[in-house]
Amino acid sequence: MSLGNIEFTTAFSVDNVIFGFDDADLKILLIKRAEEPFANHWALPGALVYHDENLRDAPMRVLKELTGLNNVFLEQVKTFGKVNRHPSGRVITIAYYSLINIHKVAPQAMSFAEEVSWIKIKDVDTLAFDHKEILEYSLDKLRRDVKLRPIGFELLPDTFTLSQLQSLYEAVLDKELDKRNFRKKILSMKLLLDVKEYQQGVAHRPAKLFSFDPERYLTLKSEGFNFEI
Amino acid sequence: MSLGNIEFTTAFSVDNVIFGFDDADLKILLIKRAEEPFANHWALPGALVYHDENLRDAPMRVLKELTGLNNVFLEQVKTFGKVNRHPSGRVITIAYYSLINIHKVAPQAMSFAEEVSWIKIKDVDTLAFDHKEILEYSLDKLRRDVKLRPIGFELLPDTFTLSQLQSLYEAVLDKELDKRNFRKKILSMKLLLDVKEYQQGVAHRPAKLFSFDPERYLTLKSEGFNFEI
Repeated sequence: MSLGNIEFTTAFSVDNVIFGFDDADLKILLIKRAEEPFANHWALPGALVYHDENLRDAPMRVLKELTGLNNVFLEQVKTFGKVNRHPSGRVITIAYYSLINIHKVAPQAMSFAEEVSWIKIKDVDTLAFDHKEILEYSLDKLRRDVKLRPIGFELLPDTFTLSQLQSLYEAVLDKELDKRNFRKKILSMKLLLDVKEYQQGVAHRPAKLFSFDPERYLTLKSEGFNFEI
Repeated sequence: MSLGNIEFTTAFSVDNVIFGFDDADLKILLIKRAEEPFANHWALPGALVYHDENLRDAPMRVLKELTGLNNVFLEQVKTFGKVNRHPSGRVITIAYYSLINIHKVAPQAMSFAEEVSWIKIKDVDTLAFDHKEILEYSLDKLRRDVKLRPIGFELLPDTFTLSQLQSLYEAVLDKELDKRNFRKKILSMKLLLDVKEYQQGVAHRPAKLFSFDPERYLTLKSEGFNFEI
């Protein structure tokens, strides 16, 4: 019942693509590697899967070991498997992605991560392994997903202004949006609840705050919408 | 630069979930395995990835070796990696799916496939490995996808009647649809071209034939729609 030795000289890893938003820019959580291969290079927080570990448990364990983050909802994106993507041997990697609110977490560098940092997507240059390709694919998926499902809201505070929401969509889609069309489209989805409060401590006229309607959010998350903007 | 031996005692495979439609039922292409493990059991057409083979080339090579099918557009669905999913060792598998028109292909059993057959989804009982779980996940994805993108059309002949199209959606979604609503919704997408021809050789009054508008098809495929039915 052996499958032969040749194919068993392979390994698999997980890599986490953690997107964050800080009211202006879309960012990505990267680690600086303390170990070879690619020592001192920025990389996605990833590592090999243990032999006795179910695949679905690996990305959260790895993220926790490298950054201390816990309870992050990670969704499988795609598996990458070019023959030479890892210099040490044949390693395919399963990429996961997540959206988190930067202000709600405090990642810390641990294990073979000597540094951990939120870096603006626009400023990401080269990355270790094929991580740039993985980031770009995941960013494309995020851009498709925010047009079909209201997932982007996970990047906002609990209450937010329409301008903040527009900034989020502009940062994710990397383009300016028409204010009037954007508001019309968002309000037509009946996804927002008017929380009857206003911004505080701002120099300009305070804007109305909204939260999302959790029930409607779940409906749109399962059924989808077509947010052409 | 070694990554240690423990993690390198693993392998990865690809499994293909090929959906077909024969004017009435949604079917799945299965092979009967001639080899252990799971000899004489029905399974998805899958096999190990070669050590020197890019992952993206593996599913088509495997499908061709087992069934003779070629030039099938395969899309990665998800990677499955429970610790004990394969009795011979630690094997994760990358699942791919495709939609093809049953009448346009003639699969043949080859290699360790001693039989190949289109089996109605409804009649699929147990399968080798975790292939039943993979099939069910892929079917869920297909059901989500046909509501968001016009991919289902790949299962139809080049020209088709509105009834055939409705039968396709009914078979995929496994529910009866209201004829009037269905037609209204489909026609409102302006996806169909009236080819100015009628069915031939039918006992009832021949129905109008349509094809899809390739340009509009590509637009909807990239931008999506929300087909609530």
